[in-house]
Amino acid sequence: MAKVAIMGYGTVGSGVYDIIKTNADKLSYSANGEKVELKYILDIRDFEDHPEKELFTKDFNDILNDGEVSVVAEVMGGLHPAYEFTKSLLESGKSVVTSNKELVATYGTELLEIAREKNVNYFFEASVGGGIPVIRPMHQCLTANNIEKIAGILNGTTNYILNQMIKSGKTFETALKDAQDKGFAERNPAADIEGHDACRKIAILASLASGKMIDYNDIDTEGITNITLDDVKYASAMDSAVKLIGYADFGKDGKIYSIVAPMIIKNESPLSGVDGVFNAVMVTGDCVGNVMFYGKGAGKLPTASAVVADVVDAVKHKERSKKIFWEKPDGNVMADKDSKRFAYFIRTTDSAEKVQKIFDKCEFVDNIVDNESAFVTQPMTKTEAENKLSELSDVVTNIRIMD
Amino acid sequence: MAKVAIMGYGTVGSGVYDIIKTNADKLSYSANGEKVELKYILDIRDFEDHPEKELFTKDFNDILNDGEVSVVAEVMGGLHPAYEFTKSLLESGKSVVTSNKELVATYGTELLEIAREKNVNYFFEASVGGGIPVIRPMHQCLTANNIEKIAGILNGTTNYILNQMIKSGKTFETALKDAQDKGFAERNPAADIEGHDACRKIAILASLASGKMIDYNDIDTEGITNITLDDVKYASAMDSAVKLIGYADFGKDGKIYSIVAPMIIKNESPLSGVDGVFNAVMVTGDCVGNVMFYGKGAGKLPTASAVVADVVDAVKHKERSKKIFWEKPDGNVMADKDSKRFAYFIRTTDSAEKVQKIFDKCEFVDNIVDNESAFVTQPMTKTEAENKLSELSDVVTNIRIMD
Repeated sequence: MAKVAIMGYGTVGSGVYDIIKTNADKLSYSANGEKVELKYILDIRDFEDHPEKELFTKDFNDILNDGEVSVVAEVMGGLHPAYEFTKSLLESGKSVVTSNKELVATYGTELLEIAREKNVNYFFEASVGGGIPVIRPMHQCLTANNIEKIAGILNGTTNYILNQMIKSGKTFETALKDAQDKGFAERNPAADIEGHDACRKIAILASLASGKMIDYNDIDTEGITNITLDDVKYASAMDSAVKLIGYADFGKDGKIYSIVAPMIIKNESPLSGVDGVFNAVMVTGDCVGNVMFYGKGAGKLPTASAVVADVVDAVKHKERSKKIFWEKPDGNVMADKDSKRFAYFIRTTDSAEKVQKIFDKCEFVDNIVDNESAFVTQPMTKTEAENKLSELSDVVTNIRIMD
Repeated sequence: MAKVAIMGYGTVGSGVYDIIKTNADKLSYSANGEKVELKYILDIRDFEDHPEKELFTKDFNDILNDGEVSVVAEVMGGLHPAYEFTKSLLESGKSVVTSNKELVATYGTELLEIAREKNVNYFFEASVGGGIPVIRPMHQCLTANNIEKIAGILNGTTNYILNQMIKSGKTFETALKDAQDKGFAERNPAADIEGHDACRKIAILASLASGKMIDYNDIDTEGITNITLDDVKYASAMDSAVKLIGYADFGKDGKIYSIVAPMIIKNESPLSGVDGVFNAVMVTGDCVGNVMFYGKGAGKLPTASAVVADVVDAVKHKERSKKIFWEKPDGNVMADKDSKRFAYFIRTTDSAEKVQKIFDKCEFVDNIVDNESAFVTQPMTKTEAENKLSELSDVVTNIRIMD
């Protein structure tokens, strides 16, 4: 019998509760016959009408000091007090599983280190891609591979917005409003549309793939707020789609190039077909080539199902710390921003002649908007691109083409 | 230090050798620091010019009787002597990993049982979907879910052929010849194009998902040999694609409906975009909804990378049998063939009036071929479909529409 606790009874927390209740037999079967029993739910709010209101507590110490509790699901979100709680629990020898990408991306290195010292586990499958199995498959099933590249659609809100623009011809503003009305986007959508959410997730994936902590503050992050309906139409005309991509490239020299930005993706790539609130992560290994993991990147039960899978894995691995972690690197592991070349899709009101003069070899795209030049450049570094763009009298759009 | 052996030095076997050699450090890192060292390669052929020819043996007993060898990769294929070898190895307390779907689908239940008794492991990630992580993610990451449905593109050869028909407008015969010339299809392509290969793979997935052995002989199997270029054109006109699908539906009553057949898939489904020799498996869980695993379903290094990941996992789990298995069910677990309803796409030379009379509510599709009626029926059981089809004076085509 394994006693577990849930911290935070919001959307995900109540999903974790539902799954533990409804799929109890399945869970104990998976946990080698050991029954998974819920002992506490920590939340500052009152749940007087809850069928099991006796499980609720407002005092974190009830969980921390209960020797019976071996696994805790932290689904409260935010940095504080989630960080302090998680740290205390790991130090007291309890395993913690989380869906808190903010916490994993910010304090993951330290928390994973404590878990290892205490020979317990800190699992975070739900922190990236919601219910999609990606952390474990990448760590375990692709273990024979050196990971060369990761490219992921990691934020459902922005993908939904871009999709509404593509499929329904809505402007960015209308699509955002629609997403907010449907509850897919926050009233303050900055974290999503400016790419910060995707940035934390690619930082986690890149850290796991390289075994070295990638600080999300070091990742060049660009959102989708500048993407217009015309850009999306141009992309469609190029048999492509615009997606917000969390991207990481692992050089043979051990350096990692990472960026979050809207990119134009050819329809041949399975990433281009990822619609609505779905997420997908494409991982390139030196042996396996491209593999993709696809599914619901958010939502109550999808996310909770990943959290509960982690709970079961933690129950199965009591006193056996699994090797899912990364460490602080000695020195800088981030590659120079000019170490990677992308082709760019550019729109400008300058003439084709002027464009040709500045960009030399480039492919022009049939105009969708009058009196402008639209073209795709040769692959170039960020500095090269900036220099050439500065020579144009104006730049309507510049979007990277994903390689 | 873990000593391992490879049985069979064909395409996959040599890939396993290459990966163990080139990614040695990565493997030992993943195996919690334990070095993975290759001690034997079993093959009846001579490899005099091989840089490590001293590793080769023709005598299985060299491996069986060597107490140092703890993990063996069986990549020889075929039922015999692979079955006898695997059985002896497991009984002698060695773990075995395999890419041999034929063996797993035929003798898996017995071999998994022996592995459990001996507290060793029999892993088979590479037996389905080549390098794609699917067995473990389904077993481990989706453990909180009751699996409701599996639909997979499990055979790269047939997918390549159908793709050539769709993309290049080749006839089935030309596309098959092309696949043979490129080495994607065997000289005798029956196992692929008649669906037997896909059938064994869906049997393995369904057994794993249900925990009960599904005999592939009980799975209704239909290949793609009757699919014509016109059928493919009709599918495109319906914003869909024809794919050979391994399908399993898990009823709440514990019964399993499974079939292998060409199906028409709407382009909204990410399965419809799976091109060429790629494979993809869509799994539907009661909590997570649809998740898809995508990648190269065959080939030397992709398949070998899955085999080596299993080797590493076996090294990490010495004397700890993992719960990846299924058992012989008491009684029949297969659902009645009429328990599942599909809509059908049908082409006949009969008149729309006659069709209407027989099929009542049905949607007609604009003709691509003159003097025929093409239409999509309401969902119906197999018997209902057979009865109605028998009332037509001829049936050019009937293909299920995937739900």
